[in-house]
Amino acid sequence: MTDFEFDAALAIVGEPGGARATLGEGWTVGPAVNGGILMALAGEAARAAVTGAGGHGDVLVLSAHFLSAALPGPARLDTEVLRAGRSTSTAQVSVRQAAGDAPDDPADSERMRALVTLGDLARHAQPVHRSTAPPHMPPPERCIRADRSLGGEFARGITMLDRVDLRLDPDTVGWAVGRPSGRGELRAWVRFADGREPDPLALLYFVDGLPPVSFDLGAQGWAPTIELTAHLRAYPAPGWLQVRVRSANVAGGLYEEDAELWDADGRLVAQSRQLAGLRMPGAA
Amino acid sequence: MTDFEFDAALAIVGEPGGARATLGEGWTVGPAVNGGILMALAGEAARAAVTGAGGHGDVLVLSAHFLSAALPGPARLDTEVLRAGRSTSTAQVSVRQAAGDAPDDPADSERMRALVTLGDLARHAQPVHRSTAPPHMPPPERCIRADRSLGGEFARGITMLDRVDLRLDPDTVGWAVGRPSGRGELRAWVRFADGREPDPLALLYFVDGLPPVSFDLGAQGWAPTIELTAHLRAYPAPGWLQVRVRSANVAGGLYEEDAELWDADGRLVAQSRQLAGLRMPGAA
Repeated sequence: MTDFEFDAALAIVGEPGGARATLGEGWTVGPAVNGGILMALAGEAARAAVTGAGGHGDVLVLSAHFLSAALPGPARLDTEVLRAGRSTSTAQVSVRQAAGDAPDDPADSERMRALVTLGDLARHAQPVHRSTAPPHMPPPERCIRADRSLGGEFARGITMLDRVDLRLDPDTVGWAVGRPSGRGELRAWVRFADGREPDPLALLYFVDGLPPVSFDLGAQGWAPTIELTAHLRAYPAPGWLQVRVRSANVAGGLYEEDAELWDADGRLVAQSRQLAGLRMPGAA
Repeated sequence: MTDFEFDAALAIVGEPGGARATLGEGWTVGPAVNGGILMALAGEAARAAVTGAGGHGDVLVLSAHFLSAALPGPARLDTEVLRAGRSTSTAQVSVRQAAGDAPDDPADSERMRALVTLGDLARHAQPVHRSTAPPHMPPPERCIRADRSLGGEFARGITMLDRVDLRLDPDTVGWAVGRPSGRGELRAWVRFADGREPDPLALLYFVDGLPPVSFDLGAQGWAPTIELTAHLRAYPAPGWLQVRVRSANVAGGLYEEDAELWDADGRLVAQSRQLAGLRMPGAA
């Protein structure tokens, strides 16, 4: 164990089948625990269950469907190993909170269900035939650090902003001062504030760690994730991660958000797509 | 019921919990049943289970993890409704074949597990704020119809090519004559050969209905899908669907394949991303 806050957030006690974790007050967006933390927890639970069954240790792809808002407090992680194969293994993870786990929630509730396929990321690192190049961005020291004062009342409830060093490209923060660009793109550098280096589980958190790209489209309020699938493509090098999130299809209160993450060597290490809800200005 | 072959392929008998279907000889790629058919079946099973529980009837997003190759023959569809909510409902579907269902397969095997979130697509059709424009392509009559003679020995085993009218953009079929472009992009028009019009379940099939984009990168052989997630964004208009598949990240024997589908009105109706395996020329 380490003293890093992200590792503490992923601490799981008990055996697969009866594993438990504590969803922390420090990783919330308003009242709810961030979905990226739930995905990283599911990745860790899948890893523990699959390696226990003789399978693989690295998440290659995780698909999460979000069922209800997770609240700070105890949670149960139910894991089922579907396959422990030669080149990949697959597990299912359910994150649940029971009545009383979260004081405001009266019923037993499943928060998220995920399918996770694992393999050996080191084996898939080389050779690189094609790789998306990172966007041109000012260096972190010339970007704008996101903190809980940026973006008005809402941002004050985003406790996880205290745990990350998130530097937004100045070209993509007009929304914070009432001037969204309308392009549907945010770019940022990101790392943990306490110096923990990124690893595959951290990538599962960071793919959902930026403000919603809908802010850049002029949409108001938070954008609840319905589903998010992340592909992890390589172990990240130590240092900053570079993130670009974009949306090209916004209709009828739904949009997709595509995230790409590059490591400090400029290697694409993860990509994700989520389907999320939003309320556009003027919408009924 | 109709006489259309796709509807016959999706015929499910029995109640959710004990539902069964027959995976047809007519939808194979070599010995295996196409993954898009499994996804459409899972979508239909989820729809039946969720509407039976008072939930929603349209697939919004389906995430499928593929566990073993499905073979023609009987299959079981185990469905669990996770949530029947106000705006969305979520179900899990497992496609299994038991020992003896497929003559060549000696053991009970799970073929695919999927998480499916459903809603009301009509409610999400309008207004359209942003939509990816379809690519410029020659009309279907100036494209190249894919049949089992195109692409050599391998294509002769793709029985589903008899059931679709697939017209490849001539600019993206160099691979069929040994000259892949290396761009990682295929474009095509597609519809069912028997005149069945597209609907959301058909979109789940068509997102995986083209040759693998890895052919355009010079990769040999089939590209097994590890995971595929599809977002359905609108009911398709009758007529041709336009499809573009691309891959930008190919490394260590894995690549992503992104598909976009537009209907005859030029509306983006579906998009998908899959993680798949491939063997590049010269790879060990």
